[in-house]
Amino acid sequence: MIKTPYLLFLGDAPDQLAAKVAQGIKDWRPENAVGQFRMEGCKADLGLTDMTLAEAKAAGAETLVIGVANRGGVISQAWKKVLVAALEEGFDLASGLHNLLRNEPDLVAVAEACGRSLHDVRVPEVQYPIANGEKRRGKRVLAVGTDCSVGKMYTALALDNSMRAKGLKSTFRATGQTGILITGNGVPLDAVIADFMAGSIEWLTPDNDDDHWDIIEGQGSLFHVSYSGVTLALVHGGQADALILCHEPTRTHLRGLPGYAVPTLQQLADLVLPLARVANPDVKIVGISVNTQHMGDAEAEAYLAQVEAEMGLPAVDPYRHSADRLADALAAL
Amino acid sequence: MIKTPYLLFLGDAPDQLAAKVAQGIKDWRPENAVGQFRMEGCKADLGLTDMTLAEAKAAGAETLVIGVANRGGVISQAWKKVLVAALEEGFDLASGLHNLLRNEPDLVAVAEACGRSLHDVRVPEVQYPIANGEKRRGKRVLAVGTDCSVGKMYTALALDNSMRAKGLKSTFRATGQTGILITGNGVPLDAVIADFMAGSIEWLTPDNDDDHWDIIEGQGSLFHVSYSGVTLALVHGGQADALILCHEPTRTHLRGLPGYAVPTLQQLADLVLPLARVANPDVKIVGISVNTQHMGDAEAEAYLAQVEAEMGLPAVDPYRHSADRLADALAAL
Repeated sequence: MIKTPYLLFLGDAPDQLAAKVAQGIKDWRPENAVGQFRMEGCKADLGLTDMTLAEAKAAGAETLVIGVANRGGVISQAWKKVLVAALEEGFDLASGLHNLLRNEPDLVAVAEACGRSLHDVRVPEVQYPIANGEKRRGKRVLAVGTDCSVGKMYTALALDNSMRAKGLKSTFRATGQTGILITGNGVPLDAVIADFMAGSIEWLTPDNDDDHWDIIEGQGSLFHVSYSGVTLALVHGGQADALILCHEPTRTHLRGLPGYAVPTLQQLADLVLPLARVANPDVKIVGISVNTQHMGDAEAEAYLAQVEAEMGLPAVDPYRHSADRLADALAAL
Repeated sequence: MIKTPYLLFLGDAPDQLAAKVAQGIKDWRPENAVGQFRMEGCKADLGLTDMTLAEAKAAGAETLVIGVANRGGVISQAWKKVLVAALEEGFDLASGLHNLLRNEPDLVAVAEACGRSLHDVRVPEVQYPIANGEKRRGKRVLAVGTDCSVGKMYTALALDNSMRAKGLKSTFRATGQTGILITGNGVPLDAVIADFMAGSIEWLTPDNDDDHWDIIEGQGSLFHVSYSGVTLALVHGGQADALILCHEPTRTHLRGLPGYAVPTLQQLADLVLPLARVANPDVKIVGISVNTQHMGDAEAEAYLAQVEAEMGLPAVDPYRHSADRLADALAAL
């Protein structure tokens, strides 16, 4: 569990895209973003107040989050100066970088001396249980995709926002590093040991109020042979009451698998439902989320209307419009 | 490598199934099993001579193999007393538990002091790739089960024996600790990091002669919510040309999941085939392997005949009879 709120470290980001993790935090959890810390030459700007470490501390920030990709896979000495000063100033550090904070002896030593924590969100920090399959109270919805990287995290975050805006009880449950940094907790599922995958998702989505919805971020795809096992652990550990099917209609093949065609939404429905019923016989597909970023307005509208007619379910692009109709579908369940 | 022969440690096994590691070694490499060591309250019995550590040492045993699995893989203090004594008596230790021998400071210290070795066969020793889904030469058959612990490893080992006896090219591919202890190599799949599961199975079953069969040991079950993701990684990473369905007909519920009914063989066929076709459109179910250990001869024969008629596929108990008819089915494919 990462302490919030954050000071967002943008470092010497070469462009806005390099700071997309910080952007995600600012977009989805603005209350977690007290300010931004930019080094000389930083080309990214979130539009937040630029703060020194002392100013951010005074404003209540608890953790400095590395919200920027580093160049060359090395945590530079220029960064180190800021990170060490942050630890000494009383901040924890959180990072989703490939090279881990815990593998930097100087950061480890200073963190220990200052009594601060280093959070590498790519690495599980919990000893997860083996799944027991027992029915839990409360409701759960899972985003499943025809492919990897089709907008499952975005869909889940947007749905969570819509649910809250409607006064419904919901919690976004992160299963990847960006989602974990945005919300401050979650399971880095792709780094969990095989036997504990489903158990980690049970742990992530425990008993809750009967009218509370966990909005579970999906991973991979049942059709993507590299990661399908991760996806099935989500389906079974999540014990989903509801599924949202996610799709990107302009792909020519599955991401990273040139020989594999992208399935249709109906093929995904046909494959996932019998599997999901193993853990929850009452599971329903309640809606479709389409990533139309590579389509024009008219094309997107026409496609969504066609999908909605074919599948008999609400079909939306939560980025272009909102996830309100998906939230309505959940509320109606 | 692990020194043979072994003394098989059954600990305080709560039932016979908990000792399946030891049972597998005894059945497939009886020459390696000098005797068994059972603690008070042990509910498992391999029919081997019960020996003290001193008796086993005198009989030539070199390694004490922990042949019993606990849910979650915990090394209890009661076990520790025996393991420490074994090291002092001159045994190496070998284990497939999640909790590693090498992570137990007392065992490490005593092993070092006594000049003995600790073998954790569960620990992956390879940096596996992420699966690429590319078609590989050679043929692969995978054992899939209606439940965990229904005889998938036995089926694969027996099928490998039958294939070789018929002069066909085959290799048993171990995916669990028992198989690894028996054959000396394999992938400890349940301990592999989620993202690399399918890739580890591609690595285990590489390009081979066109007429060579990899006989892949199955794990878990698509219906067992604790481990189903591991099973799907085998189905997709294994790129199976052929599937053998494995079943234990006397179970009242899935192992460790009291609320979950055991599916029928037809339900398993219906669930696994669409999934397997994602990685290999030509995959076929070629036979049924039934674990009839809790049935009398007549009952077993009648049940097998009934399954064979219902499924239209050869149905055998490879332990009671042999896997010859499954080998014939593969050869005919």
